[in-house]
Amino acid sequence: MKSRLLNLLAMAAIMVACTAQPSIIKTPTPERPAGQEDMIQFACDPIPDVGIGVVGLGMRGGSAVERLSFVPGSHVAAVCDVEDDRAQASYNYLKAKGIEANVYSGSEDAYKQLCEDPSVDLVYVCTDWIHHVPVALYAMEHGKHVAVEVPSAETLQACWDLVNTSERTRRHCVILENCCYDFFELTALTMAQAGVFGEIIHAEGAYHHNLDPFWGAYWHNWRLEFNKEHRGDLYPTHGFGPVCQALNIHRGDRLTTLVAMDTDPFNGPKHLKAAGMEGNFANGDVTMTMLRTAKGKTILIEHDVLTPRPYNRMYQLVGTDGYAGKYPIEEVCLRTEGAENVNYQNLDGEKVYRWGELQQLMAQYRNPILTPELEAMAKEVGGHGGMDFIMDYRMIYCLNHGLPQDMDVYDLAEWCCVTELSRISLENGGMPVEVPDFTRGAWDKVQGFSYAFAEE
Amino acid sequence: MKSRLLNLLAMAAIMVACTAQPSIIKTPTPERPAGQEDMIQFACDPIPDVGIGVVGLGMRGGSAVERLSFVPGSHVAAVCDVEDDRAQASYNYLKAKGIEANVYSGSEDAYKQLCEDPSVDLVYVCTDWIHHVPVALYAMEHGKHVAVEVPSAETLQACWDLVNTSERTRRHCVILENCCYDFFELTALTMAQAGVFGEIIHAEGAYHHNLDPFWGAYWHNWRLEFNKEHRGDLYPTHGFGPVCQALNIHRGDRLTTLVAMDTDPFNGPKHLKAAGMEGNFANGDVTMTMLRTAKGKTILIEHDVLTPRPYNRMYQLVGTDGYAGKYPIEEVCLRTEGAENVNYQNLDGEKVYRWGELQQLMAQYRNPILTPELEAMAKEVGGHGGMDFIMDYRMIYCLNHGLPQDMDVYDLAEWCCVTELSRISLENGGMPVEVPDFTRGAWDKVQGFSYAFAEE
Repeated sequence: MKSRLLNLLAMAAIMVACTAQPSIIKTPTPERPAGQEDMIQFACDPIPDVGIGVVGLGMRGGSAVERLSFVPGSHVAAVCDVEDDRAQASYNYLKAKGIEANVYSGSEDAYKQLCEDPSVDLVYVCTDWIHHVPVALYAMEHGKHVAVEVPSAETLQACWDLVNTSERTRRHCVILENCCYDFFELTALTMAQAGVFGEIIHAEGAYHHNLDPFWGAYWHNWRLEFNKEHRGDLYPTHGFGPVCQALNIHRGDRLTTLVAMDTDPFNGPKHLKAAGMEGNFANGDVTMTMLRTAKGKTILIEHDVLTPRPYNRMYQLVGTDGYAGKYPIEEVCLRTEGAENVNYQNLDGEKVYRWGELQQLMAQYRNPILTPELEAMAKEVGGHGGMDFIMDYRMIYCLNHGLPQDMDVYDLAEWCCVTELSRISLENGGMPVEVPDFTRGAWDKVQGFSYAFAEE
Repeated sequence: MKSRLLNLLAMAAIMVACTAQPSIIKTPTPERPAGQEDMIQFACDPIPDVGIGVVGLGMRGGSAVERLSFVPGSHVAAVCDVEDDRAQASYNYLKAKGIEANVYSGSEDAYKQLCEDPSVDLVYVCTDWIHHVPVALYAMEHGKHVAVEVPSAETLQACWDLVNTSERTRRHCVILENCCYDFFELTALTMAQAGVFGEIIHAEGAYHHNLDPFWGAYWHNWRLEFNKEHRGDLYPTHGFGPVCQALNIHRGDRLTTLVAMDTDPFNGPKHLKAAGMEGNFANGDVTMTMLRTAKGKTILIEHDVLTPRPYNRMYQLVGTDGYAGKYPIEEVCLRTEGAENVNYQNLDGEKVYRWGELQQLMAQYRNPILTPELEAMAKEVGGHGGMDFIMDYRMIYCLNHGLPQDMDVYDLAEWCCVTELSRISLENGGMPVEVPDFTRGAWDKVQGFSYAFAEE
């Protein structure tokens, strides 16, 4: 009854905001239940050998099983897919390596058995998008930590459900944003933290990936169907996650405002026709989203999976004294003189680093998680050039040692909420929308993003 | 579960409430005075030898005088600057080439004499920004055509004043947007018009130029002062003009909505201090502006003159079947198969062209204005690698032959209005702002941007 009243109050507030000289659209922030605490820097007891249960063994999950079988401090304890043959294939792969995994398959509810399996400590979710949240919630409710492929949540309600369930059950809810672990991003982040770029004040990220050759490969065309039904940036996290880390989001700063704009659907309807599907196509071919933070920084995010544009995650960090950009070629630009001592007569006041010179510069800023051993292992095991393995390795390492995760449930919510917030902005003609504070006040408890390490 | 359902219902209700009244900030469109006609495809009687009067002989104007002295079909008839020595230097330069120009200088009103000089057909305005509009208006009122450096107008009122004065006096009012004439832009536009990229649905442009070494070079620090006093994209046209041509703005499509977001001022106040100036700094270091068109296309424009970011005008054309991008390296990406016949199994369905392969591809799409003779002349005379000369050449060519100009007064207004519209959006927390139709209904009289040529 109390929550209903709060909802009604929130609704009334929004209606006022929307009708009387609206400057920003607000979305409700549910009150944190009494006794529930935030998950900032949350850690649990060490788990020396993490039993992993992988749910969803299609494109992404099948390769995850293979990759995870190489991660020290863990073992794949169980696999699950709605389709028997996929589950069997993963079982066989592990069996050949001498690993006996439990198998759950044959129904859309099979994941529940995996989540209830006592040999599983961590549920690793690689299903289609619409099953990410139900599996993750069920896993946490059954005492498991959970790691969720991207996009981990497609609605604000799902973001809040994951936050609340993680807070209440005291289970990790990790977003599997592999792009945070690519070599350029890892190094640029280290340079940013070392102050090489001055203060980071603007960043850009994107997912430009022409999915033409992939649409048909998704189970029952679910990805095309999702774009058909939903308008907005449906896949923001590859571009957004890495730059949020560089901007210390909920580690001293927080997102406040979002505005989005998209094109009409141009190519989408053609794909629909080619796939033999009917109806209107909701999503635009290109979606742009701008965000602002409490400390006056900005972020641009783009989504384009429907045009023949070269693959590009943008990844640009713009600082007061320097710049890093990854696409289409890697570049760093730095002042040649001290930031506080700009020589206005010097036409060569900045230097662009590319190619070999850039490699030399970046070699000086090795990310602390990237030990030579890990780098060698990652390159051997692979997975998007090694970043998938580094991501898995870090998550297991932190579980092994009882450390906070690199990416927590608030990262998940912040990075994923762009989807529904962009839709709200788009459906309101480009109105600004307030970004919820998913930490509910705890966004400046920690100053600066950092990785946790076990004491030697 | 019940509370979750209530949450969902509340959210749904909120969305309904918010979508009911999408808000957009409107700006007034003054009614066209009775008897006044639009300037679409306007042409005047041929002027075989155009007498040019150059006003403002600083950084930009001094080199314009030199460049213009090479343009066939014209002569520099008069020069003007507030400072005597600058006027004298240009006079001397011309004198040495055997050209006797009239000189006007010594007061801020000296331009009026130039505008009244009967030997002048075209007033070429290279003053500081705040004098662009008064000089242009005075010139047209005194029967002269006018060409105005960028940004040609900083306010909506100025845009309307130039439009109305041009329409009433039947004088050309050309925006000197040289970046429309750079080689990559010229060729990419030609490819776009040939349908190589399919339909252009999104475009990006920017002015990323670290002005550290230049701030002190502007007369009385006027450029820093302007950024101190004004918030918004103060210099949008280099990025915006070329992509508006590719999107056929007011040639079958028109801009409808604009939204902007900026960072706080970070480096601006440091420059102010270094220049010994006082007060608050208004403009953010980075400003992003998104625009949408009546036909559902989008444009992104960025402004960043305060951070050490590599020089970048972005210039990206995103089409349904291909892509062109200029920075940091030139790239084109095309489907390898027919657009209507995408092979979903083909992982190599697109091809990226760079370096030599790109040059070979682009050589097939020579812009019609770029005769080998003009290209050779442009490269010899120079001016930003030749584009300034090509721009001047085209304007004079069209005057010589009594043809419509490539860039008309509506281009000027559309490209420059971004400055005040972005400020309005920023000052209203990122609210969408309606872009005025400066043609007042004539935006689809012409279908597609084209260059005019004299009949052989």
